[in-house]
Formats: sequence, structure tokens, C-alpha cells
Amino acid sequence: MSGVYSRARAEELDARDPLAGFRASFAMPDPDLIYLDGNSLGRMPAATPGKLSDALHREWADRLIRSWNETWFDLPSRVGDLIGSHFLGAAPGQVVIADSTTVNFYKLVAAAVAARPGRRTIITDRANFPTDRYVVEGVAAAHGLTATLADFDEIDGPTSSAVAAAVSSDTALVTLSLVDYRSGALADMAAINEVVHAAGALVLWDLSHAAGAVPVELDGTGTDLAVGCTYKYLNGGPGAPAFLYVRSDLVADLMPPIWGWYGQRDQFAMGQGFRPVPGPGRFLSGTPHVLGAIAAEEGTRLMAQAGIGRLREKSIQLTDLAIELADAWLAPYGCVLASPRAAGRRGSHISLAHPDGYRICRALIELGGVIPDFRQPDRIRLGLAPAYTRFTDVWDGLDRLRTILADGRYLTVDLPDLPVT
Amino acid sequence: MSGVYSRARAEELDARDPLAGFRASFAMPDPDLIYLDGNSLGRMPAATPGKLSDALHREWADRLIRSWNETWFDLPSRVGDLIGSHFLGAAPGQVVIADSTTVNFYKLVAAAVAARPGRRTIITDRANFPTDRYVVEGVAAAHGLTATLADFDEIDGPTSSAVAAAVSSDTALVTLSLVDYRSGALADMAAINEVVHAAGALVLWDLSHAAGAVPVELDGTGTDLAVGCTYKYLNGGPGAPAFLYVRSDLVADLMPPIWGWYGQRDQFAMGQGFRPVPGPGRFLSGTPHVLGAIAAEEGTRLMAQAGIGRLREKSIQLTDLAIELADAWLAPYGCVLASPRAAGRRGSHISLAHPDGYRICRALIELGGVIPDFRQPDRIRLGLAPAYTRFTDVWDGLDRLRTILADGRYLTVDLPDLPVT
Repeated sequence: MSGVYSRARAEELDARDPLAGFRASFAMPDPDLIYLDGNSLGRMPAATPGKLSDALHREWADRLIRSWNETWFDLPSRVGDLIGSHFLGAAPGQVVIADSTTVNFYKLVAAAVAARPGRRTIITDRANFPTDRYVVEGVAAAHGLTATLADFDEIDGPTSSAVAAAVSSDTALVTLSLVDYRSGALADMAAINEVVHAAGALVLWDLSHAAGAVPVELDGTGTDLAVGCTYKYLNGGPGAPAFLYVRSDLVADLMPPIWGWYGQRDQFAMGQGFRPVPGPGRFLSGTPHVLGAIAAEEGTRLMAQAGIGRLREKSIQLTDLAIELADAWLAPYGCVLASPRAAGRRGSHISLAHPDGYRICRALIELGGVIPDFRQPDRIRLGLAPAYTRFTDVWDGLDRLRTILADGRYLTVDLPDLPVT
Repeated sequence: MSGVYSRARAEELDARDPLAGFRASFAMPDPDLIYLDGNSLGRMPAATPGKLSDALHREWADRLIRSWNETWFDLPSRVGDLIGSHFLGAAPGQVVIADSTTVNFYKLVAAAVAARPGRRTIITDRANFPTDRYVVEGVAAAHGLTATLADFDEIDGPTSSAVAAAVSSDTALVTLSLVDYRSGALADMAAINEVVHAAGALVLWDLSHAAGAVPVELDGTGTDLAVGCTYKYLNGGPGAPAFLYVRSDLVADLMPPIWGWYGQRDQFAMGQGFRPVPGPGRFLSGTPHVLGAIAAEEGTRLMAQAGIGRLREKSIQLTDLAIELADAWLAPYGCVLASPRAAGRRGSHISLAHPDGYRICRALIELGGVIPDFRQPDRIRLGLAPAYTRFTDVWDGLDRLRTILADGRYLTVDLPDLPVT
């Protein structure tokens, strides 16, 4: 290739990349693999095995139960504050890690609707991530409320005017994803918070595809509640504990649905009756998942060194390059951009729609040595995690995608099923 | 010492112990430590770091997202069935691991009361583990039901006749711990199930202090529901995922309160509307905690090699010895046995009541090199995990406890606070 799409240009961008050195902080056992799925499962920081080995040998095997006092007991708030301060714009004491995103999301949805008695509707996005929709529908069913699945734009996501049209004096809660799991659309948190609050409702953001990818200002935008995942852009490892945020002046009014002993004041008095701690720790339920929390801490610590400013800047460059190459190389084969075109309106992944998207993804993995992600019904999703994805990875990955589209083998070759997440 | 209480007798019991070799399967970085708290946090199997290292380097770093297809996706049911078949008397397909004991307990309590509409009461034990009481009270509050805290015997636990006196046609659910966390009392599961079922209610057992310590026959006793912990006698590591059991002919009638995408049929269709999978997997909520699950698998695998029959047999001998020594050595100093005296009526830990229990426990850790556990208000709890606790550990541990009681230093020495769990 020559001209504007030459590989030399990608090489030059890599050479000038201030985050280029961070790639060495991740384990890369297969240097030839082009991994464009860091928005599903982030790569492993090279230091994580050492941290876990220390936790196993010293904290568990040697110190045993004493490690609860010495280091484990405050893991949920310690890692929560680390995420909150570096990635969520949250002052200390408002974020904890616990359980899964789904469980945390459930806890906050249930607490929010209980805090808005008389209001009968929960609003979310029909295109929202499945677990968010299911949880909303489950809580609504249990409490005789209405779950409204609003039809926001599937590519561009919810706008503040569309949300304003959906809310009413009957709305208890609006919950949306800041970055759409499929299209990558980035919502306007501040503007949406404003229209939700104008209706007297609470707002709960799912930050799973946002945390570590785009700057988030929970305190600054007056957000009420948020949850999110640590195993995507925060590189916390498979199934690492999720985070939850409760604005400090709101927490006293929110009673968790799960009255667990880790949310109990004076926990080891083992007393009668649930008296929740003052802060977001009341949403801790059972014993924290220590090993996962330690991996999440290391992943977050490493991303904090990279810094969300630099990560976002590179992320925009990576997605811009991917869209430019897709327009030039893939559109002729019927690949249509299914993400916002404006950099300021998207997160760190893009999607391409193609009727044979599933077979193309399989072929890209098996024949091309590139791992994208497939999303129903026809989306090839490319996650461009800025901490370790090179511009040449984007160039090479899309070049291989172009080859697969050109030779048509994806239509005939017998290939295994795709990874499931 | 000489006579019946001679250390030689403990040495002889160790020499004849068919499980003696299992001690070498655990990491023991401090060979002088006498650890009598394996019922709070089990010791680390020596093979666990290797298993986790492989999971980190090969499954996460190298195979990345592909590991979901290759090994992670069925972890919850794979480890669940391993626990179920070896320790719970549960046929395959009824046990999964997920979340914490508290969260799983919540899911089953909420599902159970929804499955018994019109019945307004949940019964538990006022002496039950705090999180179980809090969850029951929270579910009752959310659904306008009554939580009844029955006053069963604090030492001997609930009997079937006491439960029979507590249940009525208004009872939706009875939930109890099979082994009491404080006294170690072992309840008669079969007889209690019978009286609960005679009243038309469901029964949910918390097996946290039972699994891996006493034989459990969930299928054989017609148990409806159970949850439990993998980080005590199953040695799964701090905060390892918990298990839950739902009897196979009951599961179709139980709707989880948390409608999560890991409980969804055809999960990756990402479709509209929650349609739960047929089995207990419907109670999976979010993405499984992979690292903790792998550690739980290794701990369970090792305990399965020991075998619940041999574990139980040794556990009875260990607790018998501890009671015999406590009677002879400690009773004169005011230590009163606060556990059932009959071996068939207790699990693998015993408690001793003493007005200065807290200070005695602190002194035993700091001055005696023995780790027991303290439980409110005055209980010195001794967990005697049969897989790695020697008879000489019991002898030496109680000998040091005797010394501390005799010299009275626990009353005056300034000592740090106890470990918290």
C-alpha cells in the first residue's frame, strides 16, 4: 500500500506514541496475535502474576486469617477509591468494588426505586446491554413497576432530548450505558443527568465500556449512581469484581436490597438487626472476592500510570484510523460503519455491520490471527484498547479483514464457533 | 504430662492417621504455627498457586477471550458438580458456584418466598449467622412478610420438634445452618426437612460450616435449597465463590430475583426479555469470578481425594480429644464447653465460653503461636480441619491455652486487636 493508507503512516504514529512503552507492561505470550477485543477482556498486566503469587503465598498461606486485618478488609474501598479517583472523577468514599456488574446493578436499581416511592416507571434503552435490561425488568416485575425500554438511536445512543421526551413525573429511575456495548456511542452524561433530575428521577450509569476508556466525571456531572466492570479497559482479569458508585449525599437514603454482613455497622458484633454502614460499603454484601480484587487493583494501578488523558487521546486516534481504513478498504465489500463517526461521540471500540458478520469474525480469528468480537445481529466489533494496541495493529488487523472479505473464504471454510463473550 | 493426657497419645493418633499424608498437600510456610481456624479460612493447597499461574499465563494472557469457550464458561457448573457429588450428596446439574454466600442466599430466599404466595412468614434461628438473619429480614421487609427469629437452643441448635413447633400453614420458608457457626451444633437435616415439608413450606440450608466437614445428603433428605462457602473446609481461598443447590424438580418453579445475562437461555443472542435456563444456572447472575473459581476447584479436588468419610471420622476424633483436654485442663480456669458434647451432634469446630474470651484469644495468637477465633460474646472457637490438623496440634494448642489461662498474662499484656473474621 502507498499514499495516505500506507503502513508507514501507522508506524510513524506508533513511533510518536507516548503510551508505546506501556505495551511492555502487559504479558504478550503470542506476539503475532492482533487482539482487538480488550473491551471484552483486557490483557494481563505483566505484574499481576507476581502480585497474586504474593497474595497466595504470603497473605493466604502464611498470614492466613490475620490478612483480613492486615490487608483484605479494606480492599473493596481501597480499590474502589483508586478507580474512582483516576477514572471516575469521584472523590474518596463513594466507590467500592464487589460482586459482579450485574449484582451491583441490581442492588442499585432496587435501592433507587425504593427511594422514589410512588413513581412507577424505570426507563432504560432497548439497545442496552442485556443484563441491564433483564435486571430492570426483574426489579419492575417484583415491585409492580413498569420497565420502559425506550427506542433510542441504535447507532448514536440516547440523547438528552430523547431522554427528556421519555421521562415524566412517574419516572423513578433512568439507567443507561455511558458507552454502548455494541455501537460504542458515548452519551452526554451531564446533559442527560440534568433532564433526568429535572423530572425528579434518579440516574444510574453503567460504565462498563467507559471506565478506563473515556474520562468520566461522576461528581462533576451530579451523577447519582453508577456501576461498571474492571475486566475490560481496567485489565482486572476474567470475572474480576465490579465497582459501584453512590453519591455521598445520597447514600443515607438508599437501603440495599441485600442486607449482608459486610454492609453492617460494627460487623463483628454479629448483632441483631441490619444497621448499614454510612457509606457505599452498605452495598457490600458477603465476603469480598480477594483474589479477583487484587488483580483488579493491579490492572487499575497500571492504567492510572498511563492516565486517562493520554489513553483517551490515543483511543481517538486509533478509532479514527480504524474508521478511515474501514471506509477505504471495507466499505466496498459491504461493511458499514455502525458507530458514531464523530470522535467525541464514541468510546474506544467501533462496530462494522455486514450481513455475514458472524462468519467474517470466525474467519478473522482462525485464518487471520486477529481477534475481534461478534455482536448480534451482524456486527464486527473492534475494541482498540489504547494501553497496548498499536496503530500498526489497527492497520494490520483491518488489512487482514480486507483480505478475508476479498477472497471470500469466510463463506465456505468450516470453522469453529466464536468465543462466547 | 503423663497418663491419659500424655502427648504420646496424640503422637500415636497422628502415627495411625490415614489422612496424615494430606498435610503435605498444603503450604505451611510457618511450621510452628498451630492454626485452629480452618473453619474460617482454610489453608492453601500447595497446588493452588500453580493452577492459578497456569490460569493467568495460559488461559488469560495467551488464550484471552477464547478461554471462555475453552474452559471458563462451564466453571460454575463444573465446580458445582464437583462439590455436589463429593460433599453434598447431590446428583449432577443441581449445584453451581457463583457470587458470595450472602448473595446466593438472598437469591434463594427471594425465589422461595415468591414460590409460596400467600404464606407470610420466613423462619430462621436467632442464633444463626448474621448475614442469614439480615438477608431474611431484608427480604421480609421488601415483600411485606414477617421474619421470625426462633429461639432455638444456642448450644444444641434447632431440633425437629422445636422447628415443628415454630412452623405453620403461614410459613413460606424455613432457613437454618446445618452446622452452627458458633457452637458447632449439627442439625438433623432429614428430620427437620420432614417437619418443614409437612407444613407445606420450603427449606433452605446454609452449609458454610458443614461442607467438607460433615457428610451431607441433600438429595437423600429431600432438601429443597442450600448454599454454602468454599473457603472454609473446602480450602478455596479468601472470598472464593460460594455454591448454591436447587433440587432439580423444584428449579422450574423458582424465578431468581436477579435476572442476569449468565442465567439467560441462549445468552449470546442478547435477546429481549429474560428467559432463564432450565437448571440452577438461572441463578448465575453476572460474569463468573474465574480466578476464585479456579482456586475453589483445586481446594475441592484435594478434599475429594481425602474423602468425606475419612475427614468426618478424623474430625470426630479431633473434637473428642479437644473436649477431653478442655474438660481436664481448662474447665478449672472457667472455660465452659459451649458445643454439643455428643460427637454425632456437632461439626468440626468446638467453642469454649469464658468471660475473658476475647483477651484470651488475643493472647493465644500473640503469645502462644496458636490461632483460634473469637465469637461474641465470650466464645473461644477452635476449628479442627481434619485435612491438615494433627492430634498433636490439638494437644499443643490446648496446652498453650492452659498455660495462658494459668499465668494470667492475657489480663494485663497490651495486645493488638484480633483478626476480624
